[in-house]
Amino acid sequence: MVAFGGGHGLAASLRGLRHCEPALDLDITAVVTVGDNGGSSGRLRAERDAQLPPGDLRMALAALADEEPGHQSTVKLMQHRFAPINNPDRRQSDVDRRTGSYDPLAGHAVGNLLLLGLMELTGDPVEALQHAGWMVGARGKVLPMACHAVGIEADVRGGDPALPDDVVTVSGQHAVAVTNGHVENVRIVPASPPACPDALDAIRDADWLIFGPGSWYTSVLPHLLVPELAEAIVASPARRLVTLNLAADNETAGLSVADHLAALHWYLPALRVDTVLADAKWVGEPDPVHRAAEALGARLVLAPLAVADGSPKHDPESLGTALVPVLGVDR
Amino acid sequence: MVAFGGGHGLAASLRGLRHCEPALDLDITAVVTVGDNGGSSGRLRAERDAQLPPGDLRMALAALADEEPGHQSTVKLMQHRFAPINNPDRRQSDVDRRTGSYDPLAGHAVGNLLLLGLMELTGDPVEALQHAGWMVGARGKVLPMACHAVGIEADVRGGDPALPDDVVTVSGQHAVAVTNGHVENVRIVPASPPACPDALDAIRDADWLIFGPGSWYTSVLPHLLVPELAEAIVASPARRLVTLNLAADNETAGLSVADHLAALHWYLPALRVDTVLADAKWVGEPDPVHRAAEALGARLVLAPLAVADGSPKHDPESLGTALVPVLGVDR
Repeated sequence: MVAFGGGHGLAASLRGLRHCEPALDLDITAVVTVGDNGGSSGRLRAERDAQLPPGDLRMALAALADEEPGHQSTVKLMQHRFAPINNPDRRQSDVDRRTGSYDPLAGHAVGNLLLLGLMELTGDPVEALQHAGWMVGARGKVLPMACHAVGIEADVRGGDPALPDDVVTVSGQHAVAVTNGHVENVRIVPASPPACPDALDAIRDADWLIFGPGSWYTSVLPHLLVPELAEAIVASPARRLVTLNLAADNETAGLSVADHLAALHWYLPALRVDTVLADAKWVGEPDPVHRAAEALGARLVLAPLAVADGSPKHDPESLGTALVPVLGVDR
Repeated sequence: MVAFGGGHGLAASLRGLRHCEPALDLDITAVVTVGDNGGSSGRLRAERDAQLPPGDLRMALAALADEEPGHQSTVKLMQHRFAPINNPDRRQSDVDRRTGSYDPLAGHAVGNLLLLGLMELTGDPVEALQHAGWMVGARGKVLPMACHAVGIEADVRGGDPALPDDVVTVSGQHAVAVTNGHVENVRIVPASPPACPDALDAIRDADWLIFGPGSWYTSVLPHLLVPELAEAIVASPARRLVTLNLAADNETAGLSVADHLAALHWYLPALRVDTVLADAKWVGEPDPVHRAAEALGARLVLAPLAVADGSPKHDPESLGTALVPVLGVDR
């Protein structure tokens, strides 16, 4: 069982899979995007040449962590973000003239620093993630899609608000993710980074490959843009599942549900999909979505997936309940 | 069994005690000085108002860690110090005008950031240390001597090299530890910090209290300067052991072995000691040391304690071998 993605979307997918475990005895591997250049991860890339941006890896580890209290305390520690210190006395006497403040740890999640330390110490992200997984008693494996960070850039129509009809190149995962323009094309830089060999093995040996939910251009599609990964995905005998999002975000504003599926075909035409899982409430008029799923070779499964409070977040238990009959086929 | 100290000296003491474990089934508690204001710990105090300087706590945890490979990998991570990044490209484009470089993590041990995160998260150093101990499978407990950092200052004759006969006040544990002058008096600031309640309990319930080895003025004596701790130490029914250093360091240059023992009496006249453990090679002429031990009520035990290569470091196995008959009395 290989789940692709990044950030909150992948974490939701993994939590859903965790809820299938009692029924299906899953062997879960998360393959995580490595394009993040914002926030804490971005600073660690810029300031310390971090081999990989750790934030998405940390979130995947947290989602797979054992539920025993000791491991959950370690998860809380890893997710803890150093808040800015507000001490007027110190600020006046010891100010960083570059930023106007002097609080170099603020904004970093402890787990990001821990993963950075492990990667520096071992020189091997896979070994680093294996130990980090051990520290949280992870019920599964977390791997990066590539062993070095990549850049993400996109051609965006109206990316510059002053020129709404022009197409400009937007660089950096964070900038693409928050753009208000229309993403016309997304690429990774370099275009052919070597894939993580362990991820290729996991794809070859999987019985299911799971894409989404998540930021479509910056967390879900990047895997399809790594040539070695794309090839392994197409060649794998595994079945393929796409879990659709519950709401559009900035980067996909204007994209319909059917457009999300069409984007998968656009970036990897050889991709065949067995099942598309979506929440009926977000799909709206189902016909175009049915047709888009059929174009990928998939059947559309509609099920309640969202949390009860109405916010567009996947509920791990509902997602798990919906996944059991899908993933349990032929087992 | 309560071991007092800080830094490498306390770590050596704890590693020695670990070597007694098979023979004596010890219940070890380390009570750690909280005066460090140098290096990574000092920066975390200055920049983030760290409740406690984490460096000495981290070293004690590492010394008590389980030997199983997973826990030892976590120890290696905690002890890993971020090295300065040397990237000429980035330095030119993204320089910190205050320091001339921009590498805010350099010098921090990962374990210091982890302990800082746990203390911020829990608001309780004892709970934070309990979880950090769990993370490394610690065979014993690590406690701070006080729940808030203290300052250390000393009156030092010749502390200012230009005025060799004058007594100046030297402030900060680091400055005291590296002074080339003669320390005439050492104090903590504030003078009466509340002791850590769990440390008071451990002292009351201990069968042995162990002082040293370590930087005498900045790691060993500070415990005796906390009034509540001093009172608990004097009142405890436990036996008391002093393990002497193998060499003088900067702060104790000019102090004889006997002077080290006399200093304990000077700062806590009510302190009675049962056993003084020393390496015959460093003691030199034994008579003054015997007399100084007797003045504390102690017998002097001489044994080989140093590592084989001739450097002035305690060998955990030799220290353990020497401790077994001492601590095994009456058990």
